[in-house]
Amino acid sequence: MSDLFANLAGIVGPANLFTDAKDFAGSLVEPRGLFTGSARALVRPANTAEVAAVVAVCAAANVAIVPQGGNTGLVGGQIPKGPEILLSLTRLNRVREVDKLADTMIVEAGVTLADAQAAADKADRLFPLSLGSEGACTIGGNLATNAGGVAVLAYGNARELTTGVEVVLSDGRIVNALSKLRKDNTGYDLKDLFIGSEGTLGIVTAAALKLFARPRARTTAFIGLADPSAALKLFGSAREHFGSSVVSFELIPRIALDYVLRHAERARDPLGAQHPWYVLVELATQNASGLEDAATEWLGGAAEAGLIDDAAFAASGEQRLAFWALRENISDVQKFEGGSIKHDVSVPIGAVPEFIAEASEAVLKRTPGARIVAFGHMGDGNIHFNVSQPVGADKAAFLADWDGMNAVVHDIAARMDGSYSAEHGIGTLKRDLLAAKKDPAALDVMRAVKRALDPQGIMNPGKVL
Amino acid sequence: MSDLFANLAGIVGPANLFTDAKDFAGSLVEPRGLFTGSARALVRPANTAEVAAVVAVCAAANVAIVPQGGNTGLVGGQIPKGPEILLSLTRLNRVREVDKLADTMIVEAGVTLADAQAAADKADRLFPLSLGSEGACTIGGNLATNAGGVAVLAYGNARELTTGVEVVLSDGRIVNALSKLRKDNTGYDLKDLFIGSEGTLGIVTAAALKLFARPRARTTAFIGLADPSAALKLFGSAREHFGSSVVSFELIPRIALDYVLRHAERARDPLGAQHPWYVLVELATQNASGLEDAATEWLGGAAEAGLIDDAAFAASGEQRLAFWALRENISDVQKFEGGSIKHDVSVPIGAVPEFIAEASEAVLKRTPGARIVAFGHMGDGNIHFNVSQPVGADKAAFLADWDGMNAVVHDIAARMDGSYSAEHGIGTLKRDLLAAKKDPAALDVMRAVKRALDPQGIMNPGKVL
Repeated sequence: MSDLFANLAGIVGPANLFTDAKDFAGSLVEPRGLFTGSARALVRPANTAEVAAVVAVCAAANVAIVPQGGNTGLVGGQIPKGPEILLSLTRLNRVREVDKLADTMIVEAGVTLADAQAAADKADRLFPLSLGSEGACTIGGNLATNAGGVAVLAYGNARELTTGVEVVLSDGRIVNALSKLRKDNTGYDLKDLFIGSEGTLGIVTAAALKLFARPRARTTAFIGLADPSAALKLFGSAREHFGSSVVSFELIPRIALDYVLRHAERARDPLGAQHPWYVLVELATQNASGLEDAATEWLGGAAEAGLIDDAAFAASGEQRLAFWALRENISDVQKFEGGSIKHDVSVPIGAVPEFIAEASEAVLKRTPGARIVAFGHMGDGNIHFNVSQPVGADKAAFLADWDGMNAVVHDIAARMDGSYSAEHGIGTLKRDLLAAKKDPAALDVMRAVKRALDPQGIMNPGKVL
Repeated sequence: MSDLFANLAGIVGPANLFTDAKDFAGSLVEPRGLFTGSARALVRPANTAEVAAVVAVCAAANVAIVPQGGNTGLVGGQIPKGPEILLSLTRLNRVREVDKLADTMIVEAGVTLADAQAAADKADRLFPLSLGSEGACTIGGNLATNAGGVAVLAYGNARELTTGVEVVLSDGRIVNALSKLRKDNTGYDLKDLFIGSEGTLGIVTAAALKLFARPRARTTAFIGLADPSAALKLFGSAREHFGSSVVSFELIPRIALDYVLRHAERARDPLGAQHPWYVLVELATQNASGLEDAATEWLGGAAEAGLIDDAAFAASGEQRLAFWALRENISDVQKFEGGSIKHDVSVPIGAVPEFIAEASEAVLKRTPGARIVAFGHMGDGNIHFNVSQPVGADKAAFLADWDGMNAVVHDIAARMDGSYSAEHGIGTLKRDLLAAKKDPAALDVMRAVKRALDPQGIMNPGKVL
């Protein structure tokens, strides 16, 4: 062990090797406290060459490695289990290049998503990946988990926003596939194999990301309506009218708004009356004029057709942020309402209303009084189906049913050809679920690929597979 | 051998097994005659189960398999080399499902692209993949080669248009990953591993494809301008003004138009005067009104800024098709001008003018009098850099320099971080190029994946790797 530590210190310098867990306790616990772990040491390489050297040294010693970015992952993928070296990517924080002509930028894995957005913005471009944790999460983690967020409808998820990657393999070699090309059919698609593999096949150290023109017009509406079926029809209508100008289409139940109004500072009810369900829609176009008129006309038609009950457009940038804060705070404020059991489900878009109805009925039958907070990226078919404990119930007793309730909800999603992890990944939380539910032949292919790329099994072991 | 044939006939029926090469000669030669081959037999399974059984029987006999769709591939991937069984997917030609609510359809591998488009159209949806050979090429081949085409800018290539695949593995097992989900982060991205692998990792038997709303407005302009630099600036301006409403942005040199006017029926010069270069732009929006006004204003501004010299909008659907025929016929008519040496290059978009200039200079230095026909998907950075022989030169002598000229052109693209196969794939034509040019670690990863998924080496051997 002391040999290993000496070798690691030789690579990153003694100041970037921490062998006493007290000195890196914050990296061993997931922010919500759902996952805690331990590790032999924390090592903080400064660049790709140091990452490669660290991995080579660990491979020679047959010691496993857990890569970590902003430590915001929700499924435990970034938390070590004891015998591993925790490898932090946060010092790889350079924006290597912004290429306005190619509409790409190359950033290192430890750059936070917010800093990546800012680098694009500074060059008058848009990097559209956007999620709640963007101030802390890093590009490496975004790619490792194929992050989604609130602009997938128009721009795609992390995978679709990436043209190339630089990866350190399990033997310490570096794959340079930092392509900025929009089209390149030269061999297997290794980029997409590493994206979403949660550090189990290699460590992403840098990425070439797509940039876009910044929209010249944007309009944001908070809409009250009767139920998810009306929201589904409204979504279809939005896509017919605005196509890929529909950037976000988020579904919000009244109870989620109630939670936010109760617990978040400065939150205000956006519409005059209360409605059972809401949709937060954002449209963006390059054409500077006419969007608000078109949106007003569209929602007027939707009101006439009885699809919606009320709607308000954000009248200022400030009001837009206030609308978005109502949406973004939903996850956070749930903790003030006691225990909650969470699901990150996706179904084919047309099945969203049916999924919410069936899953709600099943959950209420299992736990009368449970409060169902089903919200999220309706336009992607991705519902965060969260369940708060009944008012006054025992939190621990409620949470003890986590696996049982998960099984019920995931089975309903599965019957609708849905997924039990739409955007958060597998990590340790859903590893058994993956083993149980994945097509057996697909699972065997995954295992064969894992063995081929990580024969020693040292890359984030126990995650995903 | 007779055992193998008996087993195969038992699966597909004697009527769908052909063991005399005379009976399937057309499947052994690529339409341009660039690749010819031979095979032990042609087998035509009717469905996925029969494909799986055929592969299992071949695996047991250690006999290799070459899958074939419409036989339109340009790099020889679909042509067998002798000892293999040729497996035609053309009988897998059912559209299994069109799901308007989920905006997806599931089609089998042997459905032609045109039939897939028609199935979408019948349901009032758009399947936007579009390429010259769409009447003959099949979805299976489109996915095997990750086909591109003329609408990649707005909708993506075959990969980005696919949400799920059904694949027969090298041991005859079936992977059912026909997901219709927009978001699904449950394990490694096997879909994208099989897409673009040219049948070397498994055989795609069906695909779940994305559908879109049909645009309500469309405008198509044929634009004359000075050079590729002006075209690049115009492209940037188009994206600023119209974002993802820019569906196509095709670059055409005057010589290509001359070829088409000379050799294609009913071709007419679209603008009053001649121009050194042209761009064919197509814009499409969901907003039914205002597009043509906005496009007119945009091109007016471009003319004032000196970016363009002249432009004509298609005044009718018929004229639009005539504009497109000028573009689509370029490849075809080149044969009337003697031998041509072709390159399917991509570079970062901003480097397109520089690439064309440098490659042209190098080619002319090598072969004075060569006629350079550099055209294609400028918006994707994808230039079909084709070179016609000098007028009156010896065709065979000219074509004898294929590899030498390729090397010069590909080296220039490589210096600009470009690719030698933007959208056509590797097949046999570019296999040595891949081995020579790919990042060595990436190549090793590809080989490891190949060994893991096809340990016997029976899936389209000698292609790609």
